Amino acid sequence: MPGYTLLTSVPRPFEETVDATRAALADQGFGVLTEIDLKATLKAKLDVDVAPQVILGACRPPLAYQAIRAEPSIATVLPCNVVVRSAEDGTTVVEAFDPDAMTQLADSPALRVVAEDAKQRLVAALAALAALAD
Amino acid sequence: MPGYTLLTSVPRPFEETVDATRAALADQGFGVLTEIDLKATLKAKLDVDVAPQVILGACRPPLAYQAIRAEPSIATVLPCNVVVRSAEDGTTVVEAFDPDAMTQLADSPALRVVAEDAKQRLVAALAALAALAD
Repeated sequence: MPGYTLLTSVPRPFEETVDATRAALADQGFGVLTEIDLKATLKAKLDVDVAPQVILGACRPPLAYQAIRAEPSIATVLPCNVVVRSAEDGTTVVEAFDPDAMTQLADSPALRVVAEDAKQRLVAALAALAALAD
Repeated sequence: MPGYTLLTSVPRPFEETVDATRAALADQGFGVLTEIDLKATLKAKLDVDVAPQVILGACRPPLAYQAIRAEPSIATVLPCNVVVRSAEDGTTVVEAFDPDAMTQLADSPALRVVAEDAKQRLVAALAALAALAD
């Protein structure tokens, strides 16, 4: 089973990494359409404690448009989620849904073009985050 | 390649079906944490026209909690998206990401239990929508 995420470790605290992730995504042409504070949601609904983490829904509209024109059902995996999660050692994990996994679910030449473009941008965003100074 | 969505056709107009979908999801214990108006977003960003459609991010907190305890990376496919899309014949399509597809991406006994529970609830929600009177 191939992996389905792209992951990097960022040598910065959580809150700062959330801001940096938004900036790195914007640099690659992604807007953040949704944000879920998973820790706060689970605390409020279940009174349980999980690591600080947010799910950012990243969307690059030209890619979303190409994708749903190729296959309307692909809207069920949009936007592309990028999870920012606090690690125990004071670093922060940034983990994105790998667009290649989209083509594990639904494959077509048009979707492969979209997935490749999205993946290059996400890889570049994660590389920029990993390069933040310690 | 197995399917990755659950789909039903609802014999009601779009806006009414969006409301009915929220209600059907609530009846199955799902809250809607995010909502993206894809038509409005693509019109605003690209000046293109697509069918009226929204992406609802459905979450049942106990299932989300079980899932991320089993595998933190699975947060990249949460919440479970349910797309409500206007069809040309005046009906409305409701299409959910099939939780079984989660186990195509990442498989473990714990995730299979979560996926099966989520799927039963989504199937029930879609069946309730399909049964709405014409």
